[in-house]
Amino acid sequence: MNKKLQINTCLSPLYFEKYSDNKSIVVVIDILRATSVISTAFHFGVKEIIPVQSLQTALNYKGKENFIVAAERNAMPIEGFDFGNSPFHYMNEKVKEKTLVFTTTNGTKSIQMAMQHHTITASFINIDAVANYLINQQKSVILLCAGWKGFFNLEDSIFAGKLASKLLDNGFATTDDSTLSSVYLHQISDVDLFSFLSKSSHRKRLKTLNMEEDTKFCLSPTFKSDIVPVLQDEKLIKL
Amino acid sequence: MNKKLQINTCLSPLYFEKYSDNKSIVVVIDILRATSVISTAFHFGVKEIIPVQSLQTALNYKGKENFIVAAERNAMPIEGFDFGNSPFHYMNEKVKEKTLVFTTTNGTKSIQMAMQHHTITASFINIDAVANYLINQQKSVILLCAGWKGFFNLEDSIFAGKLASKLLDNGFATTDDSTLSSVYLHQISDVDLFSFLSKSSHRKRLKTLNMEEDTKFCLSPTFKSDIVPVLQDEKLIKL
Repeated sequence: MNKKLQINTCLSPLYFEKYSDNKSIVVVIDILRATSVISTAFHFGVKEIIPVQSLQTALNYKGKENFIVAAERNAMPIEGFDFGNSPFHYMNEKVKEKTLVFTTTNGTKSIQMAMQHHTITASFINIDAVANYLINQQKSVILLCAGWKGFFNLEDSIFAGKLASKLLDNGFATTDDSTLSSVYLHQISDVDLFSFLSKSSHRKRLKTLNMEEDTKFCLSPTFKSDIVPVLQDEKLIKL
Repeated sequence: MNKKLQINTCLSPLYFEKYSDNKSIVVVIDILRATSVISTAFHFGVKEIIPVQSLQTALNYKGKENFIVAAERNAMPIEGFDFGNSPFHYMNEKVKEKTLVFTTTNGTKSIQMAMQHHTITASFINIDAVANYLINQQKSVILLCAGWKGFFNLEDSIFAGKLASKLLDNGFATTDDSTLSSVYLHQISDVDLFSFLSKSSHRKRLKTLNMEEDTKFCLSPTFKSDIVPVLQDEKLIKL
C-alpha cells in the first residue's frame, strides 16, 4: 500500500459515486464558468453562496433583502434573474456582503452532488490558494470535473492536471489514469491554453454566443484570489 | 450542422448510454487485453467468438465439441477454463476452426453492452483493417473504451486517439472533447507507448503479475491482422 496522500480525478459527475469515499476532500471544477464565477464573486465581497439545482428554488429567494439570484442554462442567462454566469457580472460593488443564490447547468449540480463531503471549489483565480489549502489539510483529494451535461470536457480536465501537478510536487501521489491523463493534457496546453482549446466543445459553444471575453478571463484571469470557498451547511463560505 | 461523419469517444462503459444512438458503429476497445486477444484468436483461425458475462455461462460450454472456453477476472486466468486472457495462449494450432467462449473483467462486458448495435472490436493488431472498414461504411463512429471496472484508462484512450486520427485524416470530424483529448494523448505517446505507459494503472497491475510480455505484445504486436470482428447474433464473426 502506498501511504502517500492520493489524488483521483473524476472526469464526469456521472461516475462520482465510484470515487466518493467520505474521506477525501472533493474539489469541484467548472472552469467555464461556474467555479470561476464563484471565485470572482467572493473576491468582490459576496458573503456566501447557496448553490441550488432548480430555477424555481433560486427564484424563491428573489426580492429578499441582501440576496441576489443568478442562473444559467445551456450557457445562457435566464430572464427574471439578477445575474447570469459571466464573471464580469460580479465585478461590481452591488455584490458586497450579499448572499448569492446560484444555479447553473453543470457546476452547481456537481457541488450539490458533493454536498455530504468536505468540498471546496477551484478555478484559475484561486488555484494557488486551493493547492496550499489541500497541502495543509493532509487528506487525499478527489478532483471532480463538472464537464458538460455529464460529458468529459477538456478545460476542466486540464485544470485538474495543473492542480494535480502542484500536489504531486508536494508529497501527493496518484495511481489513477484520469489524473495522469489530466497532467499530460495540462503539460501540452500550458503555453497557450486559449489557443489549445480553440477546437474544444465548450469554447466553441461560448464563441458562438459571443462569450469570448468570459472564456479569456476564466482561462487567464486578471487577478488572483486567496479565498477557498468551502461547503458548510449547504452553503459555500469563505475560509 | 456539420454533415461530416462524427467520431465520439466514450471513455468509460458507465456512460455508454449517453453516446448510444442506434446509428453509429460502435468500436469496442480493450487493449490490455481482451480485444487484442480477440484479434489474435481470429488471426490464428478461431471460427467465431461468443462473449459472455458470467463464468457460469462460459462453463456451460465446457467439454462441448469444437468449443474452447476462456476466462479472466482481475487480470488472472481462472481454474477450470481452457484458456485465459493472454494473447500467447491463442497462438496455437488448437484454436483453429473452434468456437471460443470468452469472459473477461472489462472487455466482454463492453461488448455485451453494445450487443444491440452495429459493433466491431479493435486492437493494435487490426487497427488498419478497422480504420479501412469504418471509412468504407460511411457511418458515424462511437469509440467505446472498456477501461478498468468502469474507470478511465490510458491505453484504451490512446488507442482511440490513434484510430480517431486515421479517421480524421479521411473525412471524419469531431466536436467531442473526449476524442480530442484521446488524439492529444496518442500524439504525445506515439514514439514509445510502452515507456509512456510505465506509470499507468493497468501496466502496473500486469507488471506485478509478470505479464509484461503480454503488455509488450498488445501495445506493439509482432503481426498485423486484416480481420475485423463483427457482432452478429450475439457472436463475433470474421468479416
